[in-house]
Amino acid sequence: MLKASICTIGDEILIGQIVDTNKSYISSALNSTGVKVIYHHSIGDDEETIEEVINNSLKTSDIVIVTGGLGPTKDDITKKVLAKISESKLMIYDNTQLEIIEGICKKRGIELSLLNRDQSLVPENCTVLPNRHGTAPGMMFRIGEKLLFSLPGVPYEMQYLMDEVINIVSLLKNCETIIHRSVNTYGIPESELAVKISDWEDNLPSGFKLAYLPNPAKGVKLRLSIYNGEERDNLNGLNLQLKQLKELLGISLYGEEEDTLESVVSKALSERKETLSLAESCTGGNISRMLVSIPGSSSILKGGVVAYDNSAKTDILGVDKSIIEEYGAVSKECVIAMVNGAKRLFDSDWSIATSGIAGPEGGAPGKPVGTIWVAVSGPDILITQKYLFSGDRERNIIRFSSSAIDLLRRTMRVELNI
Amino acid sequence: MLKASICTIGDEILIGQIVDTNKSYISSALNSTGVKVIYHHSIGDDEETIEEVINNSLKTSDIVIVTGGLGPTKDDITKKVLAKISESKLMIYDNTQLEIIEGICKKRGIELSLLNRDQSLVPENCTVLPNRHGTAPGMMFRIGEKLLFSLPGVPYEMQYLMDEVINIVSLLKNCETIIHRSVNTYGIPESELAVKISDWEDNLPSGFKLAYLPNPAKGVKLRLSIYNGEERDNLNGLNLQLKQLKELLGISLYGEEEDTLESVVSKALSERKETLSLAESCTGGNISRMLVSIPGSSSILKGGVVAYDNSAKTDILGVDKSIIEEYGAVSKECVIAMVNGAKRLFDSDWSIATSGIAGPEGGAPGKPVGTIWVAVSGPDILITQKYLFSGDRERNIIRFSSSAIDLLRRTMRVELNI
Repeated sequence: MLKASICTIGDEILIGQIVDTNKSYISSALNSTGVKVIYHHSIGDDEETIEEVINNSLKTSDIVIVTGGLGPTKDDITKKVLAKISESKLMIYDNTQLEIIEGICKKRGIELSLLNRDQSLVPENCTVLPNRHGTAPGMMFRIGEKLLFSLPGVPYEMQYLMDEVINIVSLLKNCETIIHRSVNTYGIPESELAVKISDWEDNLPSGFKLAYLPNPAKGVKLRLSIYNGEERDNLNGLNLQLKQLKELLGISLYGEEEDTLESVVSKALSERKETLSLAESCTGGNISRMLVSIPGSSSILKGGVVAYDNSAKTDILGVDKSIIEEYGAVSKECVIAMVNGAKRLFDSDWSIATSGIAGPEGGAPGKPVGTIWVAVSGPDILITQKYLFSGDRERNIIRFSSSAIDLLRRTMRVELNI
Repeated sequence: MLKASICTIGDEILIGQIVDTNKSYISSALNSTGVKVIYHHSIGDDEETIEEVINNSLKTSDIVIVTGGLGPTKDDITKKVLAKISESKLMIYDNTQLEIIEGICKKRGIELSLLNRDQSLVPENCTVLPNRHGTAPGMMFRIGEKLLFSLPGVPYEMQYLMDEVINIVSLLKNCETIIHRSVNTYGIPESELAVKISDWEDNLPSGFKLAYLPNPAKGVKLRLSIYNGEERDNLNGLNLQLKQLKELLGISLYGEEEDTLESVVSKALSERKETLSLAESCTGGNISRMLVSIPGSSSILKGGVVAYDNSAKTDILGVDKSIIEEYGAVSKECVIAMVNGAKRLFDSDWSIATSGIAGPEGGAPGKPVGTIWVAVSGPDILITQKYLFSGDRERNIIRFSSSAIDLLRRTMRVELNI
């Protein structure tokens, strides 16, 4: 099987100023092409270290992908190292990339600076992968029998060029079958899940590998993998095991692979030709934002009110002032009034309302930070549920939102067909 | 200076199923303690590789921090490797962690399983760092003169334990001064910025290092660093250079260090005791969500309407149907009517309205995907602006939202004091 290493370059990664998402994207792309990623490395903008890590990676891996160090500005030394490793004596202008750069400058209404122009300079021994979404070209080098790719660090540009990298890699021999299948659960803790499926897990045939991947927005993902053997046998075996697993999971099971709570709920609403509206207090627009991420959401989401202030709850959603005075804004009574208000206002089939305390301030006796009330109203049903989480503000907002969407899912009885 | 390597463990990282945020968090924490992070590595759940990478890291670094491989489930082999490296012959139960585990199970209302109980098992040669936010304990090993830390992979738990790690590391000698200072700009492309400040950059004294860090939500961050020398001299030199830099940036400059567009706007509103409301179409709640991330946002954000459907624009925000018929929902006229509607509805000092086409569908001649109209209305001003971006749906939503907040900032004249 072909092996790959990924190396991202940039001081900003090592001092922790940014979260590097490129490695994850590249890994996923290589993996689905049947290439096994064995190492991720990140290093600073230091010539010696870059050279050392690329050379070491070329020893253990058939494919090495480097990102970063190719911006228009002066913190870049990667090309120099690439020239050395590929034994290129000259740097030459690549005309295709130069034309792209000229076009970009023209479109943005800025003059072609020397800085921009020199981005089309590449070591002579490279094959250029033209970058039509930015100024820095991708480069491919043949180092002995190995392939070394250099891509820009801007995620959007890197992703564009990865399509071309995958095209090239797919032509290579030795791409073996790697199969991963995932099922996604929400509302059950990892350890409880482990106990629930332990008999099944203990009896998995050899060669199978199970992983638990918890995430506050998505719940616990269970990933079953096989790395070798014949494709058809594997697929049959996997499907059989998955079927058994799914049967154990019940209503906690909401989807497979890249499914999210918001995507399965959106899909169900769309299929049923039903609409949704939102009345968000503590989740502050996050439920809306999660749903809007899904292309085509305009056909199911009529809209929402972020009723952050109590006056918005009363004036826009029509919550009776006496309810807030008597029970408080974080109460069953208030979310019922909010959900009814949203449903009336937007004339939707379904509505969700949330009211809670994300923190760090705002907790009260009996209503600590992390408390949320959720109401879900449908064509002939109204359900409320209280949850208590213990996280910081950001984590609480995320779990509040996912729990609310999950309550809608459970109320709508959106289940995965087994 | 003390050097550190960070190693995160998990197949889910290498196959690209998750984005690993732990390395960034740990790097940032170490860096501000004066420890230089020289390598990030990620590897799979494979005993041999884990052992090899930890041993190599102990050769190049004074401090090695490992995360992951400590969950309650059966994909974990890290402890075995740690026992080998620390020459521990026995695994022993740690009573403090066991009590915490019992408490967590009790609180969640689940029985203490063997799986949970065994999480308190640690190699005998380790110092336990009790994890009060989860079941897996942190561990510290002294390997010769080096320190090896093992932390759980769940970000929330890792972050809790990193406080203790930093306490310990701070006690060590050799923590040298590393100074980074950042200034944040929005609305000016990286290459244009580079041209604008090139004279200043070319004249930076030796020892200074400048980096450009572009981000679709935050604009371009400029980071100026010094890694050595006397603290006071460095600080004076840095401040002098920063002052010169800031003067060159003008209104594009919106903040320093961790400032975001939403944080500086929230702060300004709060200081002026003014309030904000939102009428979001294409941004779908994202502007609201960005503002709500900031603790205390309830005092400035009165609320918002996600007017995703045209009926919400007319029925709730009071946009005249004839405006949508004549000019379309993505128009100057429509965002003006939306912003007026929001301001009236929420009785706020300021309002933002957005209407655009995030894609992938919905483009039209003259109004391609990526078009957005933004209106900002204040006590005695109303401004509209059209923007055109070329990204995918997610990227467009992010840039739409940040541009809208930036327009509010520019209209409010929120500038950084130099």
